Amino acid sequence: MKNTNPSVLVSEVGPRDGLQSVKATMSTAHKLRWIDALHASGLREIEVGSFVPPKLLPQMADVADVVRHALALPGWTVMALVPNARGAEAALQAGVHKLTIPVSASAAHSLANVRKTREEMLAEVARIVALRNATAPQVPIEVGMSTAFGCTLQGRVADEDVVWLAAELVRAGVDEVGLSDTTGMANPGQVRRLFNLVRAEIGDKTGAAHMHNTRGLGLANCLAAYDVGVRTFDASLGGLGGCPYAPGASGNVVSEDLVFMFEAMGIDTGIDIEKLMAARAPLQAGLPGEPIYGMTPEAGLPKNFV
Amino acid sequence: MKNTNPSVLVSEVGPRDGLQSVKATMSTAHKLRWIDALHASGLREIEVGSFVPPKLLPQMADVADVVRHALALPGWTVMALVPNARGAEAALQAGVHKLTIPVSASAAHSLANVRKTREEMLAEVARIVALRNATAPQVPIEVGMSTAFGCTLQGRVADEDVVWLAAELVRAGVDEVGLSDTTGMANPGQVRRLFNLVRAEIGDKTGAAHMHNTRGLGLANCLAAYDVGVRTFDASLGGLGGCPYAPGASGNVVSEDLVFMFEAMGIDTGIDIEKLMAARAPLQAGLPGEPIYGMTPEAGLPKNFV
Repeated sequence: MKNTNPSVLVSEVGPRDGLQSVKATMSTAHKLRWIDALHASGLREIEVGSFVPPKLLPQMADVADVVRHALALPGWTVMALVPNARGAEAALQAGVHKLTIPVSASAAHSLANVRKTREEMLAEVARIVALRNATAPQVPIEVGMSTAFGCTLQGRVADEDVVWLAAELVRAGVDEVGLSDTTGMANPGQVRRLFNLVRAEIGDKTGAAHMHNTRGLGLANCLAAYDVGVRTFDASLGGLGGCPYAPGASGNVVSEDLVFMFEAMGIDTGIDIEKLMAARAPLQAGLPGEPIYGMTPEAGLPKNFV
Repeated sequence: MKNTNPSVLVSEVGPRDGLQSVKATMSTAHKLRWIDALHASGLREIEVGSFVPPKLLPQMADVADVVRHALALPGWTVMALVPNARGAEAALQAGVHKLTIPVSASAAHSLANVRKTREEMLAEVARIVALRNATAPQVPIEVGMSTAFGCTLQGRVADEDVVWLAAELVRAGVDEVGLSDTTGMANPGQVRRLFNLVRAEIGDKTGAAHMHNTRGLGLANCLAAYDVGVRTFDASLGGLGGCPYAPGASGNVVSEDLVFMFEAMGIDTGIDIEKLMAARAPLQAGLPGEPIYGMTPEAGLPKNFV
């Protein structure tokens, strides 16, 4: 029986971050089967979709149905991404347990991604917080700080910008601020330094490490984050999400490999890795032909690992 | 201009460990062109081949010629693998700078790999040391301790076995003992623990970390080894070497990704990563159709990285 008090929280982002990056639209039925399989593995947090206009992202047109289904499964936190107050309103109406908002540390990426300056995005975050406070005060709000480790548009992102933004976000009322390596530019030294700086500023409101494996450093960066006290890690089953800069290379850290690393280290994830790997089949069934990744699934578990 | 006093030593094992694992035989001319390209990148140590009977390993039939060529290139240490005293004699006659001997921590792997018990292998090591002392006392001898982190035949390998074997090897006269994750079973916690234990036993005779990327943990394990003071890392260009347990997955840590990680962290390798990546072309030319790996080469370097 799995430990009921795991040491780290692996937050599965495949149904949101992963699906958002692929061209083919997965049918609702396939999404639900995939989410069932993910739930069966013991995951305790999942990002199931984005509340964005269906015209912009047809993949997420069924997000309310997907949320409803995920909420009916016990024992996990159902999150949705919301880029603005309108999305937050819809997400709260759908009954999500938690909201996540993407906010860019890079000024250039903020404009390119949400067509808002960082200051305008902070104002939007404040509106979402006000809405949450008025209508669903029990729902925590997390920010995933995009391009915290560098930006392909702007280049270097100053540590000071990341720390400033984290402080402003907490001031705006968010409950957690995670750091995202949106562009696969992070390195372990930087991961340790930035999480330490952010923790010094916002304490236990420091949130998840969202690492990409663009240049193969995904797990090393997660290890580095763990070393400095991070206990929540975003990951995507099969590394789904890809990466525009790296054909053939996975974007998001592969959930299976991350869970393997922690479990091999004796750090309990609460996840049954064999069941997690079994969730690759419904993912693949729902996206025929889409490449999925994962070294541990390819190699298999060492004998007597489980 | 690169720093002339790098902080870590990346030891390229592709021409030995890599080629030994592929079916096609690379021609001598292709090997020399590949080695020239590797040398041009600033590598300071290379394992160029094995001194083994050509009948057993036709790939290495030209090892003396390859050694001669590599020795003519300035500024690096030319190593060869020798499994026994006969091989050591030939390697010393060829003029190698350094010998490396594989010795298994797993009793089962030792029998399967060299048809000797670990105690018989220790006696063989002592013979090699005696030969070296008598004929080429300036040539250091390194042991790469195979299966130090686990064995697919025997399963778990006790820490005590690794520490005992490291102590016996130093007693037999070897200059360095590195730890090899032959089977891709190591995890970062174990890497830190075992290197600390071995260093407590044999001090600065503790040698290289030889990690595999079988389950995606290669770089995380190198980071863990670096954290506990390891400064020499084996790696293979393009991850050449493959792995019998993981079709499609690379065996050896990819040199390009390892160098990227260290350089991104500001840890100087002394290697020009663009020239290192350029050495993939002659490797590929010499082994047409053989898959080679590497996330950094696929994704490309971040802008303004070099």
